[in-house]
Amino acid sequence: MTANEAYAELVRRAKELGVVNSCAAALGWDHQTYMPPKGVVLRGEQLSFLASLAHQKLTDPKVGELLSAVEGSELVRDPECDAGANVRELRRAYDRATKLPPALVEELSRVTTEAQQVWELAKKKNDYASFRPLLGRVVELKRQEADAVGYQHHRYNALIEEYEPGTTVAELKALFAGLTAELAPLVQKIAAATKRPDTTVLAREFPIDRQKVFAEAAAVAIGFDFGAGRLDTTAHPFCSGFGPGDCRITTRYNPHFFNEAFFGVLHETGHAMYEQGLPAAHFGTPLGAACSFGIHESQSRLWENQVGRGRPFWDHFYPRLRQTFPTALADVDADTFFFAINDVRPSLIRVEADEATYNLHIALRFELEQALLSGDLTVADLPGAWNERFEALFGLKVPDDARGCLQDIHWSFGGIGYFPTYTLGNLYAAQLMDAAKRDLGAGLDDDFRRGDYRRLKHWLGMHIHQHGQRFRAGELCRRATGAPLSPQPFLSYLNEKFGALYGVC
Amino acid sequence: MTANEAYAELVRRAKELGVVNSCAAALGWDHQTYMPPKGVVLRGEQLSFLASLAHQKLTDPKVGELLSAVEGSELVRDPECDAGANVRELRRAYDRATKLPPALVEELSRVTTEAQQVWELAKKKNDYASFRPLLGRVVELKRQEADAVGYQHHRYNALIEEYEPGTTVAELKALFAGLTAELAPLVQKIAAATKRPDTTVLAREFPIDRQKVFAEAAAVAIGFDFGAGRLDTTAHPFCSGFGPGDCRITTRYNPHFFNEAFFGVLHETGHAMYEQGLPAAHFGTPLGAACSFGIHESQSRLWENQVGRGRPFWDHFYPRLRQTFPTALADVDADTFFFAINDVRPSLIRVEADEATYNLHIALRFELEQALLSGDLTVADLPGAWNERFEALFGLKVPDDARGCLQDIHWSFGGIGYFPTYTLGNLYAAQLMDAAKRDLGAGLDDDFRRGDYRRLKHWLGMHIHQHGQRFRAGELCRRATGAPLSPQPFLSYLNEKFGALYGVC
Repeated sequence: MTANEAYAELVRRAKELGVVNSCAAALGWDHQTYMPPKGVVLRGEQLSFLASLAHQKLTDPKVGELLSAVEGSELVRDPECDAGANVRELRRAYDRATKLPPALVEELSRVTTEAQQVWELAKKKNDYASFRPLLGRVVELKRQEADAVGYQHHRYNALIEEYEPGTTVAELKALFAGLTAELAPLVQKIAAATKRPDTTVLAREFPIDRQKVFAEAAAVAIGFDFGAGRLDTTAHPFCSGFGPGDCRITTRYNPHFFNEAFFGVLHETGHAMYEQGLPAAHFGTPLGAACSFGIHESQSRLWENQVGRGRPFWDHFYPRLRQTFPTALADVDADTFFFAINDVRPSLIRVEADEATYNLHIALRFELEQALLSGDLTVADLPGAWNERFEALFGLKVPDDARGCLQDIHWSFGGIGYFPTYTLGNLYAAQLMDAAKRDLGAGLDDDFRRGDYRRLKHWLGMHIHQHGQRFRAGELCRRATGAPLSPQPFLSYLNEKFGALYGVC
Repeated sequence: MTANEAYAELVRRAKELGVVNSCAAALGWDHQTYMPPKGVVLRGEQLSFLASLAHQKLTDPKVGELLSAVEGSELVRDPECDAGANVRELRRAYDRATKLPPALVEELSRVTTEAQQVWELAKKKNDYASFRPLLGRVVELKRQEADAVGYQHHRYNALIEEYEPGTTVAELKALFAGLTAELAPLVQKIAAATKRPDTTVLAREFPIDRQKVFAEAAAVAIGFDFGAGRLDTTAHPFCSGFGPGDCRITTRYNPHFFNEAFFGVLHETGHAMYEQGLPAAHFGTPLGAACSFGIHESQSRLWENQVGRGRPFWDHFYPRLRQTFPTALADVDADTFFFAINDVRPSLIRVEADEATYNLHIALRFELEQALLSGDLTVADLPGAWNERFEALFGLKVPDDARGCLQDIHWSFGGIGYFPTYTLGNLYAAQLMDAAKRDLGAGLDDDFRRGDYRRLKHWLGMHIHQHGQRFRAGELCRRATGAPLSPQPFLSYLNEKFGALYGVC
């Protein structure tokens, strides 16, 4: 078999695996949206069958042989050409999957399934003790996973690798140090400011049917293709790209709080436009897949915050919003509304946090999960450590574990190493927006004031979406923005916007 | 390997195949309901992957070995015990699937895919000539299919076998002869009657949202479990049982015609209650699957017509219907409404036909498709033969092929042998209803007048649903009703109901 033949067979197998995974994605979406409650057992059997089929296809020894037959050949000499990138990332996925002993995979699946159920109840009952033994088990298994996969310097690197290939704990620590050093004082200054927004205007009556129409119109305006996607309602909002031509997003509507559905839709639309912008011809292969969790999050944060919480966006949309909700917003002018949607204040819950304090929530988790993994922190000491560090960062006392270390689902499903990608997303988003403004000129804000987002969407398509996994996240950022990732663009953005709004800095 | 071990492995494989098919059912449902238009290519790849995986599992030579290892053993001595029935029907499916040469399967799939597209256009343009060559190709391939599968006496038997195992063309001919001999004169007498219903009351304004609420309430009342199913809207109504706990039905709403959605929902609910009543423990194996197309149709027709077009049903529901549509039905009394929904008149289109003339449409198709298959009729002569026979049966001239031999999709997808199961459904429904009334007593109509359908649903569960494929259709009928299938119960039912309504007989 020639290298060309081996590569063609690798691609064929990758595409088939892509189809299997897309079936699971569609069934997963149905699970959250329309499935009747008694369908849950059958759905579990379907998803577990497809997962096991996918794992079998991913770890088939034949894939290893094909990879070896291509590697070292002329075909992949340039690691960023089509074959070079695909083989590089297929190798990464194959090695990671085959290095994990089946017994460990099974035990992780068993323990995290139980841990999620126990966590849900523990959170409801504010009972950390009931969750503690399972969390300990998860941490121990994730250590074993890191050891099986292999790493340099720090076990945590092996776990980050799953979400953000090529990024290290050393890089993340430097980023978070630079970020937190400036962010914490800024947040304190804002907290102390006398100028405060009137957020009660967002808590008036916003009828759900009109919220839906308005949010869909905004999603269309920024570039979501409803011919290749849908917007539905679920308990927990998400974006699921099945593959070319089919990407589904969801939100949840709160008739007494405007932000929840609207900014949720902008966020998921950002994710969805990335999925819709991936090259369809490469579906199933790494070139047709998103670069990393951090880059994915940059797309959602860019549209939700950089665009959707910006003044030019609302110069266009606020008159329309007032027409949509004439009662609720009758006495609310654009300045009042704009200040309200940019409320910054330390708060207990990550998912409800504003775009500035949000990253302090992540810094806390990043620090604690490193300590858990290294053994510097035991699960018994987690609540105390959480509460102490939280107060230092936010100046707030944590009233109970439900609103403290039990608030997030991530650790229960084994997602150690996942949290940092949220802040990476925020940092990438700011740096990409700066670069887009530099490339497209100051007129970009004028585009937004006219409700025209085509040039920005096109720029993101060219610099991010079309590349799939051709480049790792760091290189993609360097190519798109001319510099490695830095917290500075994000900090400048925050200082400028919130300095003006709150009269600080 | 012992017979017991072989049987256990057969069941394991059958269940896995059931899971694969249930994934395809769920994706097929989504295709018709919520999939965005541009998702069609990916959906095609998903369904074709799952179909090929299912075919591979069904025809795996190992299945043949396992079947041989069980057959002849003590385990299956009683052909109607669990193992006996499962092995009998798994053998049937395995033989049928493995006897078909892969090249023929592929060609049939290719030609029928094209034929369906061409048929749709041909019907729209009333252009039979454009469809003729493909129909000829379909007929020829179905002949090859029959030859590959094998048959006794008549090729058509091999095709019936796919839908109605164990039923022969000789039996069907006798049934249709007995049916048509009495039905045609009855229809003519009704057509000549001076007493006619006022069907315009059904064509008033029936707001869709209220139709939906009323239809769902009726579906719940007769026994559809919405905890294990859904009702959605599609262009073409259908019922799809994914497996235990998940059965989805659809309908379409016409704001200016009451019957379309409402009787459609009763019909699909009848199908769905069969699916919901299959024994979940046997999912994937023949014992967990519906007996035949004819028996499936008997369940839909029984609820749609025997129950839903009966006077006791409307004694309960008509006051509620009037409350739901106070404007449309203000001046319509129960007698007028009941006569209107039992309008009988010869008409051109099968899917719009009443429960009496419907079977003449089927008799016509049954006769013509036998002739096409045997070669007694060429595809060139089909329109002429159709129009001539139609006039003889209905006393109506066929104005064009779109409303003649082009009206149905079935032949384009290769469904030769499918049509007779519709009439089998009507005959089984009447015979089952007679038996239920005999077993449960005259009080059954009183149940209906109170809106209580539990005893009938339970009777159907005991006599039909729970058996899956334990018995073939003929034997199931004999056990449930005490007699082989006969057209007489259906004819008596028609004579009694329409004799009274139209003052004939």
